[in-house]
Amino acid sequence: MSTQSTQSQTNYRISDKFVDMKPSAIREIFKSLGQPGSISFAAGNPSPDSFPVAEIKKIADDIFTNEPIMALQYGITEGYAPLRELVKARLARVYGINNPDDDTIIVSGGQQGIELTCKVMCNPGDVVICEEPSFIGALNAFRSNGAKLVGIPLKSDGIDTELLEKALKENPNTKLMYLIPSFQNPAGITSTLENRKAVYELARKYDVLIIEDNPYGDLRFKGEDVPTYKSFDVDDRVIYCGSFSKILAAGIRVGTLTANKEIVSKIVVGKQVEDVHTNVFFQMVCAKYMTEYDLEEHIVETRELYRHKAELMISCLEKYMPADAEFTRPEGGIFLWGTLPEGIDLGKFVARCGEKNVFVVPGTAFLCDESKPTRSFRMNYSMPSDEEIDRGVKILAEAIEELR
Amino acid sequence: MSTQSTQSQTNYRISDKFVDMKPSAIREIFKSLGQPGSISFAAGNPSPDSFPVAEIKKIADDIFTNEPIMALQYGITEGYAPLRELVKARLARVYGINNPDDDTIIVSGGQQGIELTCKVMCNPGDVVICEEPSFIGALNAFRSNGAKLVGIPLKSDGIDTELLEKALKENPNTKLMYLIPSFQNPAGITSTLENRKAVYELARKYDVLIIEDNPYGDLRFKGEDVPTYKSFDVDDRVIYCGSFSKILAAGIRVGTLTANKEIVSKIVVGKQVEDVHTNVFFQMVCAKYMTEYDLEEHIVETRELYRHKAELMISCLEKYMPADAEFTRPEGGIFLWGTLPEGIDLGKFVARCGEKNVFVVPGTAFLCDESKPTRSFRMNYSMPSDEEIDRGVKILAEAIEELR
Repeated sequence: MSTQSTQSQTNYRISDKFVDMKPSAIREIFKSLGQPGSISFAAGNPSPDSFPVAEIKKIADDIFTNEPIMALQYGITEGYAPLRELVKARLARVYGINNPDDDTIIVSGGQQGIELTCKVMCNPGDVVICEEPSFIGALNAFRSNGAKLVGIPLKSDGIDTELLEKALKENPNTKLMYLIPSFQNPAGITSTLENRKAVYELARKYDVLIIEDNPYGDLRFKGEDVPTYKSFDVDDRVIYCGSFSKILAAGIRVGTLTANKEIVSKIVVGKQVEDVHTNVFFQMVCAKYMTEYDLEEHIVETRELYRHKAELMISCLEKYMPADAEFTRPEGGIFLWGTLPEGIDLGKFVARCGEKNVFVVPGTAFLCDESKPTRSFRMNYSMPSDEEIDRGVKILAEAIEELR
Repeated sequence: MSTQSTQSQTNYRISDKFVDMKPSAIREIFKSLGQPGSISFAAGNPSPDSFPVAEIKKIADDIFTNEPIMALQYGITEGYAPLRELVKARLARVYGINNPDDDTIIVSGGQQGIELTCKVMCNPGDVVICEEPSFIGALNAFRSNGAKLVGIPLKSDGIDTELLEKALKENPNTKLMYLIPSFQNPAGITSTLENRKAVYELARKYDVLIIEDNPYGDLRFKGEDVPTYKSFDVDDRVIYCGSFSKILAAGIRVGTLTANKEIVSKIVVGKQVEDVHTNVFFQMVCAKYMTEYDLEEHIVETRELYRHKAELMISCLEKYMPADAEFTRPEGGIFLWGTLPEGIDLGKFVARCGEKNVFVVPGTAFLCDESKPTRSFRMNYSMPSDEEIDRGVKILAEAIEELR
């Protein structure tokens, strides 16, 4: 044990990329949670009611009885071969994704696929264009690789294509666009096919790659599916990131990445130095669940669960919120996006709600430039109970009136 | 499905750091394995006989019966709190590591701790000093972060301190030294306390941090333990990386990192963008194994297993190898290091052995500068059977004589 003072003797020289990196604002909010009676609309978690616990327990028993060494020994970086084949077949069947020049690997959650793509494609200073608002985990992954973020407003039909082209012209060193086309996090918006086609043509014109992040794509509970970018990716510029987090379980850390083999070969090298491989056991669990149970039926049940939660939250918002507050009406996923009436300060609103033990995530957390003004906030409906949704939305509405 | 030609239309512009990154040579060797009758001394795997399968199966059943949601829902980046406390207590008890300014987090294998430390500390071009030879996964992790590697020869008592000081003088932008002081990978060497003290004083004099990578530290089967760097780290410049891979199971991807809180806080941000958190289930398995079973007794059994394998391989080398071939005699861990007689070409030797279906890893794979000449190679004794060790070593000796 050190007998020195509690201050380190060493002046640590943190790398330029990390010296200003902060934990996400969402993490800080989580520290305030957990008091009895608190209501959280701040989570990004799937509902625990959607985890097929009994089936996973049976599969685990099977694996540790019949194939324990496969599950406990080192595996290969690309992932458990049977799962890769099952995922490829499902992507082809469900999403029309089956370019023979592509390969699919298993990653440690969708987050790793996003981070590795930026790592192997971007030099420090290269531009990544993002929807604004966008997923904070991806924004921080890009920042951690020294990329420069350029945010383009997300409209109700998708990213603003006029401003997108302007940004592409102004930033010739743009390497990537990061898009969550379906049930976007945080806004809950699904971009139209027209918008996707226009964005893809701009990607071709300015020769940039697209990260298509689709963790919620299976969770449509209303309306019609829109084709993925990857399904019409004629010149193989889309890196498609999928995940088991929202359709099976989140803590298992199993995601997928599909892209041209040349890109995948570099991502495999990057993954090897990050964590060697994704834990083998849960790759086997995913594969066995897909072969021995009915994943598609399980997804249908999860959609019904979220349809109910989303409809309840929307009806409560319509019932309690003032007419000058706005909110999106998602057709899938787990989030919606609220916007305060003009003149109400977002920081004061979030703080007031916190005092009342109701938690939302301020929109600033999802901006490329966190200092921009915004009156928007993210609400999650997959985690709270029905009673919490009703009571919590009522409290949000009260907080607005108190701040007028 | 794309109807285009099989060549991508897109010219991918891979990042400067990754454009020349290649999969490790060891991976390429693995592709040649698996033919019936082949003998691999090329692995880095723990023996599957050391995995406590029955106990893990019982623990899994317990978790999926009593705490399934904890295991399947998102967890926090720092790791499962009970495991962190158990690891801290064990590090204090077994290794005298208990600086109150430090914190311990759970990472996705020791590999992630090494990679993240470089990521948060090094700017491109910063120097990382490594033992030569050293662990290829760490070397590639440093390369992937744009660090410049400087290799210092590893002697029988540890890194060469004279050449180390020369390198520190010549490279004022050295940020890190990467050391595997016990049962080194690949050389099987354990540095003496005198060497460690001298190296630590140089680290202080030139103000560099030390990554102490200790995945094999528990696996001493002969001789006396040597204090870890971290146990005498008076000014908190050591980042200590531990692992469950060699004492419980490797495929579970659970490692640990212990360092000053300021460094840990940045590593947590880096981990959050890489994989959010380590899979919760196996963190719970490790914690339950430590509380409900006897990890120390399990380690004693694993040591006995490896003592037997190491003694057998050494006796076979003494029996079959020519007098002008050299090899190390490790007191723990899973590797030893052979050196061919003068005049024998390493590449030809490895190829000839491969033709005879016996696989070793050429020493070039473990060099900072892979173009340097070497006649050394790595041998693993934890994976092959007793019969394979005897037969394989005999074949290696035959290959040498054929190449004279």
